[in-house]
Amino acid sequence: MAKEITSREENYSQWYNDIVKKAGLADSSAVRGCMVIKPYGYAIWEKMRDQLDKMFKETGHVNAYFPLFVPKSLFEAEEKNAEGFAKECAIVTHYRLKADPDNKGKLIVDPEAKLEEELIVRPTSEAIIWNTYRDWIQSYRDLPILINQWANVVRWEMRTRPFLRTAEFLWQEGHTAHSTKSEAIAEARLIHDVYARFAEEWMAMPVIKGFKSENERFAGADDTFTIEALMQDGKALQAGTSHFLGQNFAKAFNVTFSNDKNENEYVWATSWGVSTRLIGGLIMTHSDDEGLVLPPKLAPFQVVIVPIPKPDPELLEKAKNISEALKALGISVKIDTDETKRPGFKFAEYEMMGVPVRLGLGKRDLENNTIEVARRDTKEKTSIAMDQVVPYVSSLLDDIQENLFQRAKAYRDSHITKVDSYDQFKDVLENKGGFLSCHWDGTSETEEKIKEETKATIRCIPLDAPSESGKCIYSGKISERRVIFAKAY
Amino acid sequence: MAKEITSREENYSQWYNDIVKKAGLADSSAVRGCMVIKPYGYAIWEKMRDQLDKMFKETGHVNAYFPLFVPKSLFEAEEKNAEGFAKECAIVTHYRLKADPDNKGKLIVDPEAKLEEELIVRPTSEAIIWNTYRDWIQSYRDLPILINQWANVVRWEMRTRPFLRTAEFLWQEGHTAHSTKSEAIAEARLIHDVYARFAEEWMAMPVIKGFKSENERFAGADDTFTIEALMQDGKALQAGTSHFLGQNFAKAFNVTFSNDKNENEYVWATSWGVSTRLIGGLIMTHSDDEGLVLPPKLAPFQVVIVPIPKPDPELLEKAKNISEALKALGISVKIDTDETKRPGFKFAEYEMMGVPVRLGLGKRDLENNTIEVARRDTKEKTSIAMDQVVPYVSSLLDDIQENLFQRAKAYRDSHITKVDSYDQFKDVLENKGGFLSCHWDGTSETEEKIKEETKATIRCIPLDAPSESGKCIYSGKISERRVIFAKAY
Repeated sequence: MAKEITSREENYSQWYNDIVKKAGLADSSAVRGCMVIKPYGYAIWEKMRDQLDKMFKETGHVNAYFPLFVPKSLFEAEEKNAEGFAKECAIVTHYRLKADPDNKGKLIVDPEAKLEEELIVRPTSEAIIWNTYRDWIQSYRDLPILINQWANVVRWEMRTRPFLRTAEFLWQEGHTAHSTKSEAIAEARLIHDVYARFAEEWMAMPVIKGFKSENERFAGADDTFTIEALMQDGKALQAGTSHFLGQNFAKAFNVTFSNDKNENEYVWATSWGVSTRLIGGLIMTHSDDEGLVLPPKLAPFQVVIVPIPKPDPELLEKAKNISEALKALGISVKIDTDETKRPGFKFAEYEMMGVPVRLGLGKRDLENNTIEVARRDTKEKTSIAMDQVVPYVSSLLDDIQENLFQRAKAYRDSHITKVDSYDQFKDVLENKGGFLSCHWDGTSETEEKIKEETKATIRCIPLDAPSESGKCIYSGKISERRVIFAKAY
Repeated sequence: MAKEITSREENYSQWYNDIVKKAGLADSSAVRGCMVIKPYGYAIWEKMRDQLDKMFKETGHVNAYFPLFVPKSLFEAEEKNAEGFAKECAIVTHYRLKADPDNKGKLIVDPEAKLEEELIVRPTSEAIIWNTYRDWIQSYRDLPILINQWANVVRWEMRTRPFLRTAEFLWQEGHTAHSTKSEAIAEARLIHDVYARFAEEWMAMPVIKGFKSENERFAGADDTFTIEALMQDGKALQAGTSHFLGQNFAKAFNVTFSNDKNENEYVWATSWGVSTRLIGGLIMTHSDDEGLVLPPKLAPFQVVIVPIPKPDPELLEKAKNISEALKALGISVKIDTDETKRPGFKFAEYEMMGVPVRLGLGKRDLENNTIEVARRDTKEKTSIAMDQVVPYVSSLLDDIQENLFQRAKAYRDSHITKVDSYDQFKDVLENKGGFLSCHWDGTSETEEKIKEETKATIRCIPLDAPSESGKCIYSGKISERRVIFAKAY
C-alpha cells in the first residue's frame, strides 16, 4: 500500500508528520514555518470553528474584526505583553516595491517607501483592540463588551511543526471589557468551561482544568486558566487558555469608565483563544498506525459508502438510498464513485483519513440484503441487515464518539502519576511520561530549576485539587496542594 | 434626535460616512487606511459569507488556507501581476524587535533580525497558490482543483473609504486549475453567474454582467468577467470579478500536467473574488436619509419588537410569544428590553440600523388585539390583527426584499443612457450620471483619452449586448457594439 506510515513506536514525531501529509491535512509552503491547510484539514477546522462560534454566541458574544497590523507605539504600550512577543514578530517597514534597475523583471523594496512608524503583524490583538475600546467606553452602560474575532496571527517561532506551532496560524481571540473584577474573572472562567466542554464533548479529548503558575501565564495577564490534554507519547498539550487581564491593558491604553456613582475607574479585561493547534491535539489523541482517527462530531464526512468491487448502477442506487436516509438524520455521507481504484486501496485511504464509519456494499450483500459496516476506531466489521443499517449507523456514530473519549480518558487517567520525590519525578518523567502530580513550593525559582534540569514545566494548578499538605519534591519546603508537571508541546 | 445624518443631497460622501459610523458598521483605527469592522457590520458580512460559501460548495468548491506572506521571488514571478500590485503592498523585512537602548520601555526593530528575503503581505494569492499547485498536479487525474479561501488581504491604497477601499480587507478568493481552456472559461463564467445571483437575489442589488476591456482587466488575466452595480449618486461599483487566467500562472510557476495521451501541458487557471466592499455597495444601493436600509435576507435581525412605552411583564410575554412564532419560521427577531430609552429614540435607532420590520407593541394594542407593523423600506405603518401578525410579517419580509430590488432596478434602468456623441457623453456624465451605453472603437488609446478627459472608464462590455454597428463617440471609427462607461468607485 502506497500510504504506509511510520509507526508510533518507531518514531512518534515522524508518525505525526506522516499523518498530516498522507491524510491530506496540510502541506509545507514556500514561507518559513507557514503551512498550507489543505481542504480536508480545513474542513475539520470549519467544523471546530462553527461549533465554537455557536457556543460563543450562545454565551452572549458577538464577532467583529480588527486590523492585522499593530503600530509599534501601541504594541509596546503594555510592557509585559510587548516583552512577551517582541522577539518573535513579523515587522512591516515598507509599503512599495519598485523595478530593480540592475535586474530586469525583478523587484526591490523601494527605500523611499519607508513607513514613518513600523507595523507589527499581530501576534495577538490586545493592543490594537484596547486602543479601540478607549473610544467605545465612556460609562458603565457601555459595558460589558463581549467580542470575539476569528483571525490569522503571526508569531515568528524558530522551531515549527504543522498545526502545533506555525509562524502563521488561525485562531479565535475573545476580548472582553467589564466594569468589575469579579465579572471579568467570571467571564474568563465561563470561557474556560466552554473550552473544556468543546474539548471533551466534540474533540473527545479529556482535559485537566486549572490555572497557570506565574511563570507560565500569558504575558500581560494576572491569571491564566488553561485546559491541558495528554498526547499518546506522554507529552502535554496546552489546548486553550483564557486570561484574566486585570486592569493592565486599561491602564496601558487609558481606558476608563464612569461608574454608577459617576466616578472614573479603569476597565477590567479578559482575553481567550484557541487555534488550529487543536487539530494537532486531535491527531495525537486518537490516531493510530493506520492513520487519522476522527471523532464523528468533527469528521468532514462521517460515513463513506464504497461499492464493491466497483460502482455500478444497481449498487449506486442502493448507496444513494442509504445516503439519503442517513443525511435525513443529519449524518454526512460520501459515496465513492471512483472506478479507477480497487476496494482495498480505498479502504486504506479512508482509514488514513479517519472516516468514522465505512459501509462496504457488494453484489452478494444485495442478494443477502445485508451490508458490511466497519468502524474506524476499533476496526471491527459487522454485517448488518439492510433495513437496520440507518439506525445502526446513527447509533454507532454516538458509540464511536463516546468510545474515543473513554479510551483517551483511560489512557490519560493511567498517566497521571503521583510522585513524592525528585528521583521518582525524574524516573517517571523519563520512563513513563504523562502528567506528574506533585508538591511544589510555589516559587518561580524551583519551577525554573526543574524545567532546566528535566524540561518539565508546570502545566497547571488543577482547579479541583484538594488541599493536601506536603513537601516540595525539589526544595523540600512545605506545599499546600499538588500541581501538574509534564513535558509539553 | 442625536442620530441625525447628513442628507444625500447635501453631501453623498458624508452621508455614506455618517451611516457607516452611526449604524455601527465600522470605525476608523490607529492603522492608516484600516478599519475596525464593528459587530453589527460584521454580522452582515457573516450573512454574506455564509450564503456565498454555501453557493460555492453547491457548485463543487472546497475551502483551504494558504499563507499570508508571499516571498518576493514568488511575488515577482508572474510579471504582469507583480507590476499590478508592486506599488501598493506591505512588506515584511524583519522578524524581531528589541529593547531600545536609548529609551527605556520602548522597542526598536532589531537590525540583526533582517529577513534574507522580504515577504509581501498578500494583496492576492495567485503567486503563493500556484507555487503550491505545482506540487499537487502531475496528471489530468489531479484536475480540476476547485479551491476557495476566506482571508484578509492588504493593498496599500493611498485614498481609502470604509468598506469601499481599505488597506486591509476581508474577502474570498477562488483559485481553480483545469486541464482545458474551455473548462477554465466555463468555471470563470459559472462564478460570474453565482456572483450575479448573489448580488440580485440576496443583496437586492441589480447588476450588469459583462467582461472588462484589456485596460481594466485583472493584472495577469486573459479575461475578466465583472458584475457592475449602480450607486444612488450615479457612480458605478465593481462588485465582483472572476478571471480567466489562461496559462499565465502555470507558465510563471511551471505547473504542468500529463494529459490522457501522456503529453505534458500547462495547466489552465481561474481566480475570482468578492470582498467586504460589497457592504459599501449594499449601503449605497438601498439606504436613505434616515440611515441604513437592509434587504431582509442579509439583515442581522429582520424584526425588532419594541414594547411601548417600555417593557413590562405583560408586554414582554406577548413579545416573546410573537418572537417564538417568527423564529419557528426561520425569522431572526430582537426584543428590545432596554428600559432606559424612549420609544421615539429606539425607533430612530432601528431605522438607522436598517432593521427591515419593526413591531410596536403597546397596552392599547393588547386591548384591541392589534399590533403596529412598520416597514423600513417605505416607512409605511399598518395596524394588524394580533393573530395575523406572524404570517403577515413573514410575507412582508419577502415583499421588502422584492421591493428593494425593484426599486433599485428601476433607478438603475432609468440611469442607463444611450449616447451617440462625445458632447452628449460629457453632458449626461456631468448632469445625470449613471451608465452610458455607447460605441467605442475598441482601442486602449481611446479608452485612456476618455478617462483622462472625463474620469469615466469602461465598466464592462455587456454579455447580452446585441451586435449593432455604429461609430465610436470619441474617434468616429467603426464599432460593432455598445459598451458601458461610467464614473466608478
